[in-house]
Amino acid sequence: MSIKEIPVASLDAEKFIEEQAGLIHREAGAQPAVNALSGGVDSSAVTLIGHRALGDGLKTYFIENGLMREGEAEKVVAVFRGLGVHVQVVDARKEFLDALKGITDPEEKREAVTQTFYKKVFGRLVRESGAKCLLQGTILTDVDETVAGIKRQHNVFEQLGINPEEAFGYKILEPLVQLRKDGVRKIAEALGLPASVYKRIPFPGPALAARIIGEVTSEKLDLVRRATAITEEILAPTGAFQYMAILHEDRVTGVRDGKRDFGMQIEIRCWDSLDARRAIPTRVKWETLEALSLKILAEVPGVVSVTYNIAPKPPSTMEAI
Amino acid sequence: MSIKEIPVASLDAEKFIEEQAGLIHREAGAQPAVNALSGGVDSSAVTLIGHRALGDGLKTYFIENGLMREGEAEKVVAVFRGLGVHVQVVDARKEFLDALKGITDPEEKREAVTQTFYKKVFGRLVRESGAKCLLQGTILTDVDETVAGIKRQHNVFEQLGINPEEAFGYKILEPLVQLRKDGVRKIAEALGLPASVYKRIPFPGPALAARIIGEVTSEKLDLVRRATAITEEILAPTGAFQYMAILHEDRVTGVRDGKRDFGMQIEIRCWDSLDARRAIPTRVKWETLEALSLKILAEVPGVVSVTYNIAPKPPSTMEAI
Repeated sequence: MSIKEIPVASLDAEKFIEEQAGLIHREAGAQPAVNALSGGVDSSAVTLIGHRALGDGLKTYFIENGLMREGEAEKVVAVFRGLGVHVQVVDARKEFLDALKGITDPEEKREAVTQTFYKKVFGRLVRESGAKCLLQGTILTDVDETVAGIKRQHNVFEQLGINPEEAFGYKILEPLVQLRKDGVRKIAEALGLPASVYKRIPFPGPALAARIIGEVTSEKLDLVRRATAITEEILAPTGAFQYMAILHEDRVTGVRDGKRDFGMQIEIRCWDSLDARRAIPTRVKWETLEALSLKILAEVPGVVSVTYNIAPKPPSTMEAI
Repeated sequence: MSIKEIPVASLDAEKFIEEQAGLIHREAGAQPAVNALSGGVDSSAVTLIGHRALGDGLKTYFIENGLMREGEAEKVVAVFRGLGVHVQVVDARKEFLDALKGITDPEEKREAVTQTFYKKVFGRLVRESGAKCLLQGTILTDVDETVAGIKRQHNVFEQLGINPEEAFGYKILEPLVQLRKDGVRKIAEALGLPASVYKRIPFPGPALAARIIGEVTSEKLDLVRRATAITEEILAPTGAFQYMAILHEDRVTGVRDGKRDFGMQIEIRCWDSLDARRAIPTRVKWETLEALSLKILAEVPGVVSVTYNIAPKPPSTMEAI
């Protein structure tokens, strides 16, 4: 199936939203529908289009996996409450931490997060809800990357642990599949989402698990979560494409109170990019980098060293793992 | 024993050299003497003062430990040949690599290098030479740090594996012990050493073994040696106090020829400092950092990521291990 792209220049946001809401209404009809909201721009836009089409007939879940940024669940719930949409928060922290235990390989780590999300948590919610209609925030770039083999080719039902016979009764609706990121941002703005959502920088699927080199633990998540909050606060004014804090596993020597102290290192990455395919490190002002480093050293316990990435993509990637 | 410091402002270099050469001549007399030359400014100055005093009566060894910078042995031998001094190169690469095998702890790594140098290699050379007089490049800062407990209090004879009874016949001469680094640089210039020696940036005792996080292997030494040469070449014009390349053990994701490639990361540190007690990262020009990063990515096999340190000392230290 070939999907017809709608370029952002020819996108009439209001018309697009009406059409997609109409489609969802016809497809889902009076049946209950579900979707998972991560707080990113894609799933936020889908949630609002879905509620415009189905009202309370759409059940929206925010899965608290323990890998999110500081105060994320509260922020997302508050934004949607302001827009008249109820979001149900599902606490699945233990399931994700258990699944990540002992895993150090980056690929296995990503796989553990994906599997826990689909098979275990969201799959269970779908089955328990009795819904036969799923709304997903897939965009055209996701489809391209699946075709190119960069992302895994996946059968969504299989991922949800729903067997093909059962799957016969299910419908997957992907209202954003003709759009790129810039189109989705335009739609999200037209839907009334705040700039903090529709202008939000990209964040990886495995969330903070992708920002920890080595095994993911509850303690390390707390450290990288704090470093991420500081980094996002201080680098937001750069207007860069993406910025992040990465907790390394290597220990380096530091000195505290006149004594040697083997401590941790945080790496900062801040990217200038048009489409994430190529990227170069932002030439952040030295005053900003120094302030960022000092705040991390002061507020993230055990960190004695901070670095700034100076390698472009390629050969680097945007994320470290 | 309290040592009387000679501040650089009141140091008469020519007079100091004559006095120290005279002292060495009286103390060593007609007996053979030995010293180890590392190529750093302290041991280079001692070598020249010693040869002025004793001529060929002083045997100077350069111990090739395999942890040195690119072409180091050849450079040192050539500089001293130009000054009329013969330096004997001792190939001890295998002994140092064997001693470092399997060691990942930074302290144990430093200890292995020190022990191999003193007990095994230099100790053997001293005994075989029959010399009873050793010249050492100790400076006042080394003494201070030993007293303060930052460096280990050491009995040099014990380190050499020479027992106290035997040691009775030995003499240690330390002609630079009243000077700080700035004084030694002045003396080294007056002795006719080239600027590449007397202005040389500090380099750690365990050499490139201190620039590898995790186990030291011959392959990693080759990589960090190449990165060090590139870093020293490109950052020399900054005039910074010290600059270095560190090979991390953590693997990070990169992309080569369109495929994922878990690769290595090099961290660059470049310090502004007066006396190494406090230091801040140099605000290197972005063009320079970008050129440095690209050259390392192109010329050091397997490296996909380069970072630049942005944390001050304290709480960081100058070296990473």
